[in-house]
Amino acid sequence: MKAAVWHDQKDIRIEEVEPKVLKNNQVKIRVAWAGICGSDLHEYQEGPVFIPIDKKDPLTGEIAPITMGHEFSGVVEEVGSEITKVKPGDRVVVNPTLTYGNKPEDIDAYDGFSFIGLHGDGGFTSYVNVPEESLYILPETLTLQDGALVEPTAVAVQAVKEGSLQFGDTVAIFGAGPIGLLTIVAAKAAGASKIIVLDLSQTRLDKAKEVGATHIINSGEQDPVQAIKELVPNGVDVSFEVAGVSPTFKQSIEATKARGTMVIVSIFARPIEWNPLQLTNKGVKITSSIAYTPTSFKQTVDLMGTGQLKPQSIVTSQIELDNIVSEGFEALTTDKSQAKILVKLSGEM
Amino acid sequence: MKAAVWHDQKDIRIEEVEPKVLKNNQVKIRVAWAGICGSDLHEYQEGPVFIPIDKKDPLTGEIAPITMGHEFSGVVEEVGSEITKVKPGDRVVVNPTLTYGNKPEDIDAYDGFSFIGLHGDGGFTSYVNVPEESLYILPETLTLQDGALVEPTAVAVQAVKEGSLQFGDTVAIFGAGPIGLLTIVAAKAAGASKIIVLDLSQTRLDKAKEVGATHIINSGEQDPVQAIKELVPNGVDVSFEVAGVSPTFKQSIEATKARGTMVIVSIFARPIEWNPLQLTNKGVKITSSIAYTPTSFKQTVDLMGTGQLKPQSIVTSQIELDNIVSEGFEALTTDKSQAKILVKLSGEM
Repeated sequence: MKAAVWHDQKDIRIEEVEPKVLKNNQVKIRVAWAGICGSDLHEYQEGPVFIPIDKKDPLTGEIAPITMGHEFSGVVEEVGSEITKVKPGDRVVVNPTLTYGNKPEDIDAYDGFSFIGLHGDGGFTSYVNVPEESLYILPETLTLQDGALVEPTAVAVQAVKEGSLQFGDTVAIFGAGPIGLLTIVAAKAAGASKIIVLDLSQTRLDKAKEVGATHIINSGEQDPVQAIKELVPNGVDVSFEVAGVSPTFKQSIEATKARGTMVIVSIFARPIEWNPLQLTNKGVKITSSIAYTPTSFKQTVDLMGTGQLKPQSIVTSQIELDNIVSEGFEALTTDKSQAKILVKLSGEM
Repeated sequence: MKAAVWHDQKDIRIEEVEPKVLKNNQVKIRVAWAGICGSDLHEYQEGPVFIPIDKKDPLTGEIAPITMGHEFSGVVEEVGSEITKVKPGDRVVVNPTLTYGNKPEDIDAYDGFSFIGLHGDGGFTSYVNVPEESLYILPETLTLQDGALVEPTAVAVQAVKEGSLQFGDTVAIFGAGPIGLLTIVAAKAAGASKIIVLDLSQTRLDKAKEVGATHIINSGEQDPVQAIKELVPNGVDVSFEVAGVSPTFKQSIEATKARGTMVIVSIFARPIEWNPLQLTNKGVKITSSIAYTPTSFKQTVDLMGTGQLKPQSIVTSQIELDNIVSEGFEALTTDKSQAKILVKLSGEM
């Protein structure tokens, strides 16, 4: 079967791989759709970030070359002998996060985690074998294409939960890339009354407005903190840092009210210079978000199923696996109008 | 009357000043005892930090030269015509924090604040006029000397409250200067079951043990994070950063459990280089503390009155006003065995 395999930075190849033998405790999924994530892009542009190249990943037992793709949905093709909860034909979405499972779910990931599709073979191919506990049945109301959006949407759901967002709260989101856009969607579903989104790209800000921002601010044209204070004089209740650079880190704190919360959602690639006195003066709390708990993943499936969470409008392209480098990774690198690109595998809806 | 007056960095003079005319809404206090604070020391060593030199402070209307001293107790000498709550002879402690009072007390200070004794004339003299609402009657069980310890103890009480410390929690305190020592006292009174204190000075650590630390760790001799993890394998519930430098900032986060809280208590003098990814990986929340609310100040008086809070052992010297530079500011600069130095004014107990 064909797969998009990471060999090295800027070296993702479409090649033939052998389907793996199904274990008794595994489920074989025929992949329908798989999204390209910002993490995938980092592996392409400047990897390896997560992909193991020196020794096998402790949770997957795998090492590069690795078939990428961790945002995917599909149909159960075959089940191992120990499987009891799903059956062939079930439409499912995969939670790709693997943990040690030694701690309660709210702290489990802080002991370390791996991703199907980064630390081990994933969904940019025809068939993947996954543990039963990684699977969630898709509600009737969701298409398989919707299913490929559950994973990144769960990231945003977790971020909103980390911010302890209350119904009616005001929100600022710094960065309107895919996760920033999904944070808008999640904050709206959680009942935020003002969702102020900041970015340097007008194209991205227009998309932000489309998916639910109540106000957009171009940080290259206006002072972002001042612009937020004109809308919410005491500062927002919760801010989300989804850009991962020093200026937005400081702006996020500055734009938040005293006793409000700033959530670090982005993965900071490098250190910043910062004076912690900023927190002392502002009285803002900082928290952060990494992936999602199984509960948040399930809630995301449910909230998408009821239509409360509608991430569908972040999809900007559907492409074929053969074109994943040019129309996927390269397009995301050069074209700011691209948000979420979905790769059609079996292509079932 | 004699006063210790700040004129400039390294220029604090004992000189004659005129007592001010008492306003109708003020209370004249005959000062009994006044403590030297770390902030006073900073004004002496590298000031002005808070002391206004270019224009009058907006809350006090005063400007340097300023009589220092903001940790003080005394006896009511005379009351203005509008005063109803205290009378001559009452033993009182002064809350020196002045705010705009436009917001609820938990966020009021974040609109800005000034201190009697830094932004306006304070307690290193014989008489001070203060607003009635700044006064708290001392319980019978407390001496006037105890009264001079209320203010710095309130700083520690506020810090512990900001950490949302729960009964039985484990705690790490980075820095065993005066506020670090008082944080030990406050954490003990709040029911912390382990109080691990870290410093580079063995003299300070010995003092920490004396005031209530359950474990002391010399960070120059042992890896502090590893030493804490040997005592509390998953990390402490709450850590307090009371040193104000880059290494302890990072260690405080690293030593805290996932979903635990790190409280910035110190005033960082300069920026640090830091990667916010540390929070993402650890799942630790950062909060901070500035001064105290009026409620926390009152609770400190009450808890000292019942004997639950016992900060008395942090006092290392009692000196005369005439010697405040040599035996006060200089001693605190050069002698690590000094923690809290009290200046005897009227000297009543």
